[in-house]
Amino acid sequence: MSEALHWHRRRFLQSAAALPWLGSLALAQDQGGEGGPARIVREYQPRNLEYPFASLDQPITPTRLFYVRNHFPEPALDASTWRLKVEGAVEKPLELDLASLKQLPRVERVVTLECAGNGRLFLTPTERGVQWDTGAIGTAQWSGVSLGSVLDLAKVKPPAVEVVLEGADAGEVRSDPRSPGKIAFARSLPLGKARAPEVLLAYGMNGEPLPAAHGFPLRAVVGGWYGMASIKWLTRILVVEQPFQGFYQSLDYTYWERQNGLPTLKPITAMQVKSAIARPARGEVVAAGSKYVVRGAAWAGESAVARVELSTDGGKSWQPVKLSSKPEPFVWTLWTHEWLVPRVPGTASLMVRATDAQGRTQPMQRDPDRRNYVITHVVPTEVQIR
Amino acid sequence: MSEALHWHRRRFLQSAAALPWLGSLALAQDQGGEGGPARIVREYQPRNLEYPFASLDQPITPTRLFYVRNHFPEPALDASTWRLKVEGAVEKPLELDLASLKQLPRVERVVTLECAGNGRLFLTPTERGVQWDTGAIGTAQWSGVSLGSVLDLAKVKPPAVEVVLEGADAGEVRSDPRSPGKIAFARSLPLGKARAPEVLLAYGMNGEPLPAAHGFPLRAVVGGWYGMASIKWLTRILVVEQPFQGFYQSLDYTYWERQNGLPTLKPITAMQVKSAIARPARGEVVAAGSKYVVRGAAWAGESAVARVELSTDGGKSWQPVKLSSKPEPFVWTLWTHEWLVPRVPGTASLMVRATDAQGRTQPMQRDPDRRNYVITHVVPTEVQIR
Repeated sequence: MSEALHWHRRRFLQSAAALPWLGSLALAQDQGGEGGPARIVREYQPRNLEYPFASLDQPITPTRLFYVRNHFPEPALDASTWRLKVEGAVEKPLELDLASLKQLPRVERVVTLECAGNGRLFLTPTERGVQWDTGAIGTAQWSGVSLGSVLDLAKVKPPAVEVVLEGADAGEVRSDPRSPGKIAFARSLPLGKARAPEVLLAYGMNGEPLPAAHGFPLRAVVGGWYGMASIKWLTRILVVEQPFQGFYQSLDYTYWERQNGLPTLKPITAMQVKSAIARPARGEVVAAGSKYVVRGAAWAGESAVARVELSTDGGKSWQPVKLSSKPEPFVWTLWTHEWLVPRVPGTASLMVRATDAQGRTQPMQRDPDRRNYVITHVVPTEVQIR
Repeated sequence: MSEALHWHRRRFLQSAAALPWLGSLALAQDQGGEGGPARIVREYQPRNLEYPFASLDQPITPTRLFYVRNHFPEPALDASTWRLKVEGAVEKPLELDLASLKQLPRVERVVTLECAGNGRLFLTPTERGVQWDTGAIGTAQWSGVSLGSVLDLAKVKPPAVEVVLEGADAGEVRSDPRSPGKIAFARSLPLGKARAPEVLLAYGMNGEPLPAAHGFPLRAVVGGWYGMASIKWLTRILVVEQPFQGFYQSLDYTYWERQNGLPTLKPITAMQVKSAIARPARGEVVAAGSKYVVRGAAWAGESAVARVELSTDGGKSWQPVKLSSKPEPFVWTLWTHEWLVPRVPGTASLMVRATDAQGRTQPMQRDPDRRNYVITHVVPTEVQIR
């Protein structure tokens, strides 16, 4: 274990020791017997695991804590027989093995992925889907090739409009009466986004080969878009001349947009500006009259975070927080704020809100047209002052 | 009551007397105390009423027996204050009252309407939606104006691609977790179909003003398409430059089409070729050794029926039936076949199948990709020979 990791672990154990009520930070032995925070299990079959967001203390999320969002059982692919097909509206259909892919120019990029349902736990009434708290998000250094370089190799034909990415994960969506029987997980990107430099086909994560749970041997990483676009266990790239209308494209992972007074169904695409408080956690006890370093993250998808403000009085007043790095698109920014905790015991309501470079600010109210996705409204963190 | 109606009624009472088991043909006093067949109530709120298909004996369905498909409570519109708005991508937005509409060239047309869920009762396992038997279908003489003449009046702008029709019927779709809150019933037509001569805005039905249950004062009648396109209580025509993605367009009333191995969601549009047996009814007792006139209807949406065949031996052999009129698009054709009932008591399985002018024949098996709509596979009628 590195020095830094030791330090983080020690610090975490100290803080966690002060938080016996934090079930989500249980000091369970996790993956190999190391102590420290563990992922929260949201669903066993298929496996859906949440990053313990209160443990946030560095921009890169440790792989063993990175959230896992599965729609079907995880396929176990054999890298020696696995192939990536590139077909449809291309001049040169391809069937690539991993070695051929690795001969293309290698790209390294730090990208934040967030599940489109992150924060669903805060919706009232309860909305269907995995009940994520704040931690269906994580940032990793991905290594691979750009999707654009593979498309160039296959030579996309001019009438093409979209690129469908299809994974090896497949099954029946029993919870949905509109499900079309057994389907593979698939999603499309407009050709422009597919060719953007932030869109990778990744075979490495945080300096290691991609783990099985994250799509071994190859996954898409679509910077700036919600996680459903970043297809894992990628097996097929299909270039199409009509917009794709698949189950996870046109029926699930959609929202309503009002046009001329009529609700219009739209696929979910780019991440919206959002911020979240990691510490204090909800219900945490803070010492009256102390200085408490409030910390969290802010992100803005394809845009950059421009401003992050914190309120410690339930939204009456807002102060700018300190950003730990210059914000840029595709990656979250960590922030801190030294809070002078009131001397009088009681409760406090903390809120954080971010604004992106386009001037869009997180809303205070939930927009019901977003249904069970894109949960970015400000959710207060109530703490106890003692 | 006319002579002909008297005759039909007497004939019906005679045949119904022989069918005490036919609950659907209950001799209830129906709308004003007249005897005769009554509609089958499939749902009370909103009202969904089925035509008793076994009573089929003339091409025009009596208005009081015509099926009623409602998604929301029936709006009670006042013809003196009602207006039709025509807006969106048009040079001259309009707001028309009924008198102005009636000054446009009057069109009379016989058109068959069928609910896209007609026959859902025969699906196993049970599919969600109103459990229609065979009678969510009917044919009327509609009078009104062509939708095209109204579009010409408003002068559609060149980038337009579709025409959205919106009704005054509105509400929340509580049964669907994806519903966008309160919505009006709305559906779109591609501009080409919207301008076709078989698409009317009707203010009359079978020589009378349109009844409230059928969309008073004005409804669309989209010849050749399933009934969901024929918006009742029409209040707005919106010309749009992007395909409409509304709840009843892109989410409900859709089916799966396989493209490149991927299920692709498509709006339900044109009626598919279909035929049905009216008599004998399912489970009816027929006399051994008698001559029984099997009767029914066949229809093919935008195409014409080319051939109708009957099997009385469970699909082993097929005989052409006698059509009562030259088939044409948009209207059903009645047919009869004189069946020499076997002399040996037992059961018989009757089947009918139609083929349209494009050579498409009703399938023998249900295609699950059609989900709970477009139910056209051959469903046997079992009868008892005594």
